[in-house]
Amino acid sequence: MSEHSFPVRVYYEDTDFSGNVYHAAYLKFFERGRTEWLREAGIHHSELAQQGIAFAVRAMDIQFDAAAHIDDLLVVKTAVASVKGARLMLTQHILRRETVLTRANVTVVAIKTSGGPARMPKGIVERFGGGSNAIPL
Amino acid sequence: MSEHSFPVRVYYEDTDFSGNVYHAAYLKFFERGRTEWLREAGIHHSELAQQGIAFAVRAMDIQFDAAAHIDDLLVVKTAVASVKGARLMLTQHILRRETVLTRANVTVVAIKTSGGPARMPKGIVERFGGGSNAIPL
Amino acid sequence: MSEHSFPVRVYYEDTDFSGNVYHAAYLKFFERGRTEWLREAGIHHSELAQQGIAFAVRAMDIQFDAAAHIDDLLVVKTAVASVKGARLMLTQHILRRETVLTRANVTVVAIKTSGGPARMPKGIVERFGGGSNAIPL
Amino acid sequence: MSEHSFPVRVYYEDTDFSGNVYHAAYLKFFERGRTEWLREAGIHHSELAQQGIAFAVRAMDIQFDAAAHIDDLLVVKTAVASVKGARLMLTQHILRRETVLTRANVTVVAIKTSGGPARMPKGIVERFGGGSNAIPL
Repeated sequence: MSEHSFPVRVYYEDTDFSGNVYHAAYLKFFERGRTEWLREAGIHHSELAQQGIAFAVRAMDIQFDAAAHIDDLLVVKTAVASVKGARLMLTQHILRRETVLTRANVTVVAIKTSGGPARMPKGIVERFGGGSNAIPL
Repeated sequence: MSEHSFPVRVYYEDTDFSGNVYHAAYLKFFERGRTEWLREAGIHHSELAQQGIAFAVRAMDIQFDAAAHIDDLLVVKTAVASVKGARLMLTQHILRRETVLTRANVTVVAIKTSGGPARMPKGIVERFGGGSNAIPL
Repeated sequence: MSEHSFPVRVYYEDTDFSGNVYHAAYLKFFERGRTEWLREAGIHHSELAQQGIAFAVRAMDIQFDAAAHIDDLLVVKTAVASVKGARLMLTQHILRRETVLTRANVTVVAIKTSGGPARMPKGIVERFGGGSNAIPL
Repeated sequence: MSEHSFPVRVYYEDTDFSGNVYHAAYLKFFERGRTEWLREAGIHHSELAQQGIAFAVRAMDIQFDAAAHIDDLLVVKTAVASVKGARLMLTQHILRRETVLTRANVTVVAIKTSGGPARMPKGIVERFGGGSNAIPL
């Protein structure tokens, strides 16, 4: 299984007065990448929400290696590192052409919107539970 | 009844690459001002949410007269223009010291989080339904 | 000249605890629409920034008619109402399929990133200065 | 030297449709905490910007242990772990009363707004360069 790629354009909203993309904006880009990767796998937040299920990020470690700027066209790459029980581990990169700007290891869990943990949706375990596809950092 | 004042500090997150505060950030400041004005009146979003009630902005007209910058200490002023049936009309200004930076007329309604309109919470009608306190623009 | 259309997907970042899209998020969508409309006209923020020029929203009036939700695919429609001297007046709508969710009249000016007003970039005046293309509200 | 504490209120803008605070919002809260900690030390972004200097986050590892909700009053705790050359290492926590919700180790560097790395501002090295004050995780 190959990694998933999703393009993201940088807009005014993503930048700050330093002239660079604001660091927390990369987390939004990563989240868009995860959502589009799930959508491609047939998993939709809107359907999960009707069952009272949502995702939550439990842990991230992020390296901000280089800055993105207004108008940049970026690519968010997403690959499954592992699915262990209730924990989905992903490796994500943001690139501008060949340059890796930001690298993250992300741990995602499922939660009940009424509070408390939920089981990882079956579709994720079935499709991605078999092994490792981490992008080598 | 006097207008309500609430201080807001400008952080990295509020600015964009032009060096000014991003225009949509003022809407966040206005919303913080409305929330704190309601809190002072004993009305809390967290309690309303438990009853399945939230607020929604139905209309805004905004004048962005002058720019705010990183580290600025702003004041959000909020006054009721009118409460008519389900519609709460507010006048809000954002100032840096004596200078008005942004002016807005805001129409707020109550909604059910399950969808559809809701009655304006009683506390708002009782406290603010009597007349007009608009800040003259 | 026809109006410009640009698709926008709703992500976690755009929603709030009411279950709807946060009202200020529509301003980001409108801004993305304006940026892509300008890009199509050959006008790029990154190039203007190198000349010390950026855009600022001077005024908006917005009607929030109906709510968008997580996973919704929206379309931002942008049309020039007029270009008068330093002021660009736009009419913008956000739709989900046939339904108009949000309508805005937006006044944009050019500014110097060093402070103070700037001339509207020539490309905008030349291409859009001739007349009116407002979407009828 | 003791850790720095700064209160943060949760508003609509910080939440998402899951009913919890959006994960990237905690990064904004951490950034506000760092800014206020610097302000107390007499270091202001607005003054650094005039010298063409800004801060950039180079790395973060974050544990999201528990969720915050609308109206919550949080506290951001910031302590210096070390200042080594151009790198400022901080430990930051977000708490709701006694409960730690989010924990982060943050590496901050100084950059030139014209591009490229800058020296860590002298005030930071002088005040915080001596040793370690990490909050034990």
